[in-house]
Amino acid sequence: MNIPDKHEISVIADNLKPYVHRTPIVQSSSLNKMYNSDLYFKCENFQKTGSFKIRGAMNAVLSLTDDEKANGVVTHSSGNFAQALAYAALSKGIKAKIVMPENVIPSKRDAVLGYEAEIVYSDSKPLDRELKCVEVIKETGATFIHPSNDIRVISGHSSCAVELINDAEDLDYVLVPVGGGGLASGISIGFYYFSPQTKIIGVEPKNADDAYRSLKEGDIITQTNPDTIADGLRTSLGDVTFPILKEHLHEIITVSEEEIISAMKLIWERLKIVVEPSGAVAFAAILQENPEFHSKKIGIIVSGGNVDVTRLIKLQ
Amino acid sequence: MNIPDKHEISVIADNLKPYVHRTPIVQSSSLNKMYNSDLYFKCENFQKTGSFKIRGAMNAVLSLTDDEKANGVVTHSSGNFAQALAYAALSKGIKAKIVMPENVIPSKRDAVLGYEAEIVYSDSKPLDRELKCVEVIKETGATFIHPSNDIRVISGHSSCAVELINDAEDLDYVLVPVGGGGLASGISIGFYYFSPQTKIIGVEPKNADDAYRSLKEGDIITQTNPDTIADGLRTSLGDVTFPILKEHLHEIITVSEEEIISAMKLIWERLKIVVEPSGAVAFAAILQENPEFHSKKIGIIVSGGNVDVTRLIKLQ
Repeated sequence: MNIPDKHEISVIADNLKPYVHRTPIVQSSSLNKMYNSDLYFKCENFQKTGSFKIRGAMNAVLSLTDDEKANGVVTHSSGNFAQALAYAALSKGIKAKIVMPENVIPSKRDAVLGYEAEIVYSDSKPLDRELKCVEVIKETGATFIHPSNDIRVISGHSSCAVELINDAEDLDYVLVPVGGGGLASGISIGFYYFSPQTKIIGVEPKNADDAYRSLKEGDIITQTNPDTIADGLRTSLGDVTFPILKEHLHEIITVSEEEIISAMKLIWERLKIVVEPSGAVAFAAILQENPEFHSKKIGIIVSGGNVDVTRLIKLQ
Repeated sequence: MNIPDKHEISVIADNLKPYVHRTPIVQSSSLNKMYNSDLYFKCENFQKTGSFKIRGAMNAVLSLTDDEKANGVVTHSSGNFAQALAYAALSKGIKAKIVMPENVIPSKRDAVLGYEAEIVYSDSKPLDRELKCVEVIKETGATFIHPSNDIRVISGHSSCAVELINDAEDLDYVLVPVGGGGLASGISIGFYYFSPQTKIIGVEPKNADDAYRSLKEGDIITQTNPDTIADGLRTSLGDVTFPILKEHLHEIITVSEEEIISAMKLIWERLKIVVEPSGAVAFAAILQENPEFHSKKIGIIVSGGNVDVTRLIKLQ
C-alpha cells in the first residue's frame, strides 16, 4: 500500500475543492458549558450528498485514467457511499453501477437513481454483494472502488482533516466515528502530516465494536450481525484501514446505543442541525464525561445527515 | 406610533450586532430545481435563543432608560419571545419576569429559567395573562414589552431584513411567517427602506388565518382557538402591526397543516437544519407551486428552530 506523502495529501485536498463543500464548523456555548470542553463540530452533514463520503468517492474518480473512466466504476453500498460515488461519477460523466441489497431503504435507492447511477441488486450477505461486483467488473471492465478500504478513498477523506486544521487550530483531540475505518484513516493521515500533536480518537458503537477488538487483538476481527442504530458503522476494517488505524489512532472509545441517541438529540436540539445516528457517534463519547476531555479543544466529526425524516418524525 | 426612519433602522441594526448572530443563508440546488425558483433560506433557527425573537427583545432592552432598566421588564409568552427577553435582559443585567401559562411545555419553561428570568404563572386565557402583567407592572414598575405589537421589537426584527438584503441582493420576493405580525412588520420596514422593489408576502396557517382575514376586512379580527401545529403563529395582529402590514404586505398566502409538515420535513431532509413548524411556514407557500414564483429570486425567513426533539422523534 502506498500512502500519499504530505505534499500529495495537500494536492488532493486542493484538487477536491471545486467538487466538495468546505463544510462549516459550529460551536455551542451551552454544550461547551455542559461538558466543560471547547467543542468544534465539523459539519459533514452539510457536505454534498449529505456526508463526508463524497470526498473519497470524488478523489477515487479523479484518480482514474482515461481508459478506466471509459469503463465506469462499481461499488457495493446501501448507504452514503452509494450516493457519493453515483454523484462523483455523474459529475465527471462516468458510468456508475451500485450493488445494493434488494431490501434497500427506498430513500437511499432513490438518491442513487437521482444521480443517474445503475443499481445492481444482490442478496444482502457481504459475500454475495462482492461476487456481484466481480460479475460487473468481468462484464464491463468497470473499476471497483471500495467504500472504505481503498487508499484513493481514504486520501480523499483527508481533505476533511486539512479543512478542520485550517479552521480550528491546535486541537488537542479529534473524535471520529469508525465503521469501515475509511474516514478515521483519512483524518489520521491528515492530522499526522499537518497537526501531529493532535490525538485522534476513534469512536465506535459498543454493539459494533470490531475495530476496538481488532486493535486490541492486533488482527482484523470481522463484524458479524451488528445491532446498532448507527447503520453507517456496521462494516468491518480491511487490510488498508487496519494498519493505518493501528499506527495512528490514540485510542478507540465505544459508546452505547442510548449514548448515541442522546448525542443525536442534543445535536439536533442545541446545534439545530440534522445529523444521522452514525454522525452523532463521535459526540456520544463526550457524553461519557471523561475528565481527559475537560478544558480541552476537541474536534468532532459530524459525519453525515442522511436520515429519512418521514420514518423518524412522529407527526400525523 | 413612531416608525423609525431609514437612518434609525440602520443604526438599530448596527447596535444589535454585538448581541445577535448574523445568521447564514443556505441554498439547496435540489429544492431550487424541484420548485423552479432561486431560494435563499435565512436561518434564524441558528439565531441566539433559537429564533429571530432575540433581535426585537434585545432592541427593546437597549431602548430602555436607566430608570426603566432598574425596574426590569415583563412580558407574556409561552414561546420563543419568553426565552429571547429573558436572554436579552440577562445579558444587560436587568431583571425579567415572564408570564407563562401553568401548562407551559417544560422545555420552554426550563429555557427561561436557564436565563435566570422569573416566571409568573397565569391562566392560559389572553385576558388573564394580560392582567397578570398589569399586576407585575403595578408591583415592580417593570416595563412591559409585547412579543410582537411593540415598535421597539418590530424595529429590532428589521435587522434581519438588513442582513438578508446585504447577503442576497435584488430579491423579487420575501416570504415571511405571520403570527402576531412583529417579524413581518420588521421585515417589511427593512425592505421598504433598503430594497423597496422586493415584494413582501406574509404566509399564515389556514387554521390561524386572522391576519389574512384582517387585511381583507380592513380591520383587526382576533384569532380564537386556532388549531395549528405552527404554535408560534397562533397570536393575532395588534394596533401597531396591523397598519404596518396593511401598508407594506403585497399579499398573504395561507397554507394547510399538511403543507407546513411537508415543508418542515423537506427543510430537515434537504437543508439538514432543524426548523420548528412555525419556521417552515414561509417555505410551505413554495410547495403550492404558484407560477408567480417560477424563476424568481426568493428570500424565505426560517424563523426558528426550537422543537422539543424528545417529543418529536420516535426512537426508543
